[in-house]
Amino acid sequence: MSALPMHPRLVSLEGGEGAGKTTVLAALRAELEASGREVLVTREPGGTPLAEKIRGLLLHPGDEAVSAETELLLMFAARAQHVRATVLPALERGAWVLCDRFTDSSYAYQGGGRGLDQDFIAALERRVVGIRPGLTLLLDIDVAAGRARIQGRDRRPDRIESERDAFFERVRAAFLARAAAEPERFRVVDASRPVDDVVAVAVAALRDFTEAA
Amino acid sequence: MSALPMHPRLVSLEGGEGAGKTTVLAALRAELEASGREVLVTREPGGTPLAEKIRGLLLHPGDEAVSAETELLLMFAARAQHVRATVLPALERGAWVLCDRFTDSSYAYQGGGRGLDQDFIAALERRVVGIRPGLTLLLDIDVAAGRARIQGRDRRPDRIESERDAFFERVRAAFLARAAAEPERFRVVDASRPVDDVVAVAVAALRDFTEAA
Ligand SMILES: Nc1ncnc2c1ncn2[C@@H]1O[C@H](COP(=O)(O)OP(=O)(O)O)[C@@H](O)[C@H]1O
Ligand SMILES: Nc1ncnc2c1ncn2[C@@H]1O[C@H](COP(=O)(O)OP(=O)(O)O)[C@@H](O)[C@H]1O
Ligand SMILES: [Mg+2]
Ligand SMILES: [Mg+2]
Repeated sequence: MSALPMHPRLVSLEGGEGAGKTTVLAALRAELEASGREVLVTREPGGTPLAEKIRGLLLHPGDEAVSAETELLLMFAARAQHVRATVLPALERGAWVLCDRFTDSSYAYQGGGRGLDQDFIAALERRVVGIRPGLTLLLDIDVAAGRARIQGRDRRPDRIESERDAFFERVRAAFLARAAAEPERFRVVDASRPVDDVVAVAVAALRDFTEAA
Repeated sequence: MSALPMHPRLVSLEGGEGAGKTTVLAALRAELEASGREVLVTREPGGTPLAEKIRGLLLHPGDEAVSAETELLLMFAARAQHVRATVLPALERGAWVLCDRFTDSSYAYQGGGRGLDQDFIAALERRVVGIRPGLTLLLDIDVAAGRARIQGRDRRPDRIESERDAFFERVRAAFLARAAAEPERFRVVDASRPVDDVVAVAVAALRDFTEAA
């Protein structure tokens, strides 16, 4: 089930809605670029024009109840494209890749949240992704606190953001379980703290990782 | 790998481009309706509003090379939705379902054509489809003859229609191999004959099937 190679220049940010992933990414990019590294910042679902269109279907599918299996396969279709067209070419030319969500989000949302079988997700990961990040920063925050942060946004919540709190509690628990199972890959960051503190902890974790490499 | 239940009111039409699937479907529908049966005619990829949008991405993805894995997962994402939102509800209320392409097309196009692993396709079929048609009519025709039939169409060929002949030869061989492996489910129809003959053979095969049921 595991034994997937971890790529030393692939770093993912994971966590629930409003945890601060997108905010922290900018600081991580600056940290890597300050030492002269080429950095590609990307996101999932998305990261190629086609994968962004798949993201559009996932988040705004129209008036149709999307089955959990459809959601899972669309996520991995987008990821298959993203890995081949964007992530691997960047890694191969020596760049660092910072990814706002990666495969762990499928385990957390479609596995934990929707209740789909983890072994099936693992089979998809093995067959169509084939690599794991060397470092995954899990920004962990209470569901209500994360939700409060994104309340003020000037757009309507998308299909997944519209889920109930119980769904996001399962997502959070699944992320924490994954971090506990793979302590060599994960660093869990307390994302409830002020943004400067969260950024400082995340940057320090990245620095430790690059120095150990 | 097999042992998937065959549904006695689910009938699929399979075959290469220009074989006559869409043409034959109308006659099959009329045959079933003449005996007072409710019939749903549907197609893959497609068959729900969301699945039709996925079809749009598959056939017209824009200027991006679509990876074989992306194509496979988009096909099964559309199928997962189609089966749950359209096919199973119709079967459950007692209707017959006539489907223009179904899972065999993924074995033929993404398996035979693209060279993806048949075991992975079988795992997707088992996990997200779960049923097979009771009857599959394979309209078999020489690649060049099928291509000649669709030449006159007043639209540009889509991404898959634009493949080379060698691709369609592999697709045809994969369809024939599936038919040989499951003779109880497949009827192979020589689709090179005049349309009235092809329709007559297909209707007779459907009548045999409904009478045996
Ligand atoms: N540590 C923090 N404390 C308070 N607000 C934060 C913090 N981190 C991010 N935010 C704010 O919360 C909102 C969501 O942050 P964002 O980075 O978009 O989260 P995510 O990408 O994880 O959903 C933004 O308005 C952001 O400015
Ligand atoms: N047996 C046949 N002989 C000649 N032309 C045919 C025959 N069956 C179908 N056609 C024509 O070939 C074209 C493709 O048929 P169609 O049913 O759309 O094929 P498919 O759905 O398998 O791609 C149409 O123009 C149709 O009228
Ligand atoms: Mg974000
Ligand atoms: Mg057709």
